[in-house]
Amino acid sequence: MSTRTNRKVLLNARPDGFPTEADFRLVEAPAPEPAAGEMLVRTIYLSLDPYMRGRMNAGPSYAAPVELGGVMTGGTVGQVVASRHDGFAEGDLVLAGAGWQEYGLSDGRGVRKLDPAAAPISTALGVLGMPGLTAYVGLLEVGGLKDGDVVVVAAASGAVGAVVGQIAKIRGHRVVGVAGAQKKCDYVVDELGFDACVSHRSDTLAGDLKAACPDGVDLYFENVGGKVFDAVLPLLNTFARVPVCGRIASYNATSLPEGPNRVPQLMGLALVRRLTIRGFIVFDHAHLEANFLRDVGGWIRSGALKYREDVVEGLDSAVGAFLGLLRGENFGKLLVRVSDDPTR
Amino acid sequence: MSTRTNRKVLLNARPDGFPTEADFRLVEAPAPEPAAGEMLVRTIYLSLDPYMRGRMNAGPSYAAPVELGGVMTGGTVGQVVASRHDGFAEGDLVLAGAGWQEYGLSDGRGVRKLDPAAAPISTALGVLGMPGLTAYVGLLEVGGLKDGDVVVVAAASGAVGAVVGQIAKIRGHRVVGVAGAQKKCDYVVDELGFDACVSHRSDTLAGDLKAACPDGVDLYFENVGGKVFDAVLPLLNTFARVPVCGRIASYNATSLPEGPNRVPQLMGLALVRRLTIRGFIVFDHAHLEANFLRDVGGWIRSGALKYREDVVEGLDSAVGAFLGLLRGENFGKLLVRVSDDPTR
Repeated sequence: MSTRTNRKVLLNARPDGFPTEADFRLVEAPAPEPAAGEMLVRTIYLSLDPYMRGRMNAGPSYAAPVELGGVMTGGTVGQVVASRHDGFAEGDLVLAGAGWQEYGLSDGRGVRKLDPAAAPISTALGVLGMPGLTAYVGLLEVGGLKDGDVVVVAAASGAVGAVVGQIAKIRGHRVVGVAGAQKKCDYVVDELGFDACVSHRSDTLAGDLKAACPDGVDLYFENVGGKVFDAVLPLLNTFARVPVCGRIASYNATSLPEGPNRVPQLMGLALVRRLTIRGFIVFDHAHLEANFLRDVGGWIRSGALKYREDVVEGLDSAVGAFLGLLRGENFGKLLVRVSDDPTR
Repeated sequence: MSTRTNRKVLLNARPDGFPTEADFRLVEAPAPEPAAGEMLVRTIYLSLDPYMRGRMNAGPSYAAPVELGGVMTGGTVGQVVASRHDGFAEGDLVLAGAGWQEYGLSDGRGVRKLDPAAAPISTALGVLGMPGLTAYVGLLEVGGLKDGDVVVVAAASGAVGAVVGQIAKIRGHRVVGVAGAQKKCDYVVDELGFDACVSHRSDTLAGDLKAACPDGVDLYFENVGGKVFDAVLPLLNTFARVPVCGRIASYNATSLPEGPNRVPQLMGLALVRRLTIRGFIVFDHAHLEANFLRDVGGWIRSGALKYREDVVEGLDSAVGAFLGLLRGENFGKLLVRVSDDPTR
């Protein structure tokens, strides 16, 4: 019998607007025992990502919502601590989707072994994981990056935006980021090599962005919405593309913004400038994962592409860190170190 | 010296909202004489199209506006009456862009000879011309029609919509039209073979459309905007495509509709349903013209594809007919017979 205690964060209530601590509940229960064909994985890192806000809602979306009282979903990196699965042995380091808990049971589906010699295991949740792949497919496949494009990247210092902008720089493009805090803007320019970065907190956002994009914008990687989208729209050039990856500015809205209704204006601009606005979800593009790992993995090894992680300690910190993420307080890929990383 | 009098319709004032007769001015002047390398073309048919409303505005768009006091632009079919151009002889029937006037001077650029034995010459302005090509590229290239798509077509009895729907039917799709008057809906179903057609004048448009599309909508050919777009949006399936060809419902608006601002809602739907919204202008797709003429020409000759023309008589009728077009009063491709058609 296991003597392990599993702590887990459940969805306690569906948020009305911005989530609060009370929408979550931390509980303890004995860790389960793996049945035949199963394994128990100890969570080392839990990824916190904006999409999780959507899973807290009841409404239909591209993925099923978290059930009330269910464990919050999330990507994890962990270590197998007990296995009755032929493909995995105790000690294996794996990418899994155990959610917000210390131990997860798995039948191996969707689980991938990690080689700590190839890259730090935490990167499987960030630059070499779902956020990195999102950046790669959104920029290259959905956005159809082509020679000469001026690229604007929302949430530029974030897990996705930082990769988008760096790939575009590696490809030789002019890249302008949009971020919040000045330290993020500085990081994006000084460390990641973007050509410029403007703050969405500035009263002069629209003018700042225009000044940074004197030849307009050919590809806007949308991850924010709201006033950032409003500032980019008038700058979009003919044949510009807008891959729509996320809209964090709207995730906690309980009502639509006041009028006028700007949909006719948006559609009119789409027509005269022949814009392509295209929503995408990374899991529709899994066929590009091998190319992504080859390219981005190579750029990381060569030092051409950098990444930054914002690691908080312990499952107790998950809720607060997630609420901070929704406020833009994280700086880099947000991870919770749920238990010790044996590779560090 | 020419003794021909040229009557022409000028842009007299830029409309404030819905155009009026006073925004146009009919004037007479001697027809010009062709210089070396030029020819004079007598207009037989003038095409009237919704895009002309946009050319009456001063603002930037995909094409230069008509100058105040300038001849209204427009596609024409005519006959060469005097030529000092090596490539064209008196008597040649040509597709030209002489605008709203009885005689146009041309240096031959963009002018194409017509063979009246191949198809009625008026069709070069409609089903075998710009509107037909718009339908062809919008549905097949921009919209990326693919097996199993349910297609909804706005302005279904119009010059573009009728071709969109019929091509989709020929390709084996379920096709639902949206039109105004009941006679147009009946025509679209009974004559053109659409599976259904709903009226945008009905108070139950949204419900009617939903009932006609029980499996949702995979491709919406947008030519209207406004409440038709609003009714289609919730029905769009995952990976649906919205080629944006026109937005006639908004062309005469002097202000945006009242709130709330539904842009975040639209972008949210684009994300979760992975929609592609893509504006296009036919002249960006001229490389498809040969395929278009082969395919649609063949379907017309075989009787698989039908067309309807709404012909008004005389340049005096142009302004009134154009205003009627903006109100949806035409029934089929709207043409002005400016002078006798020698082929009929």
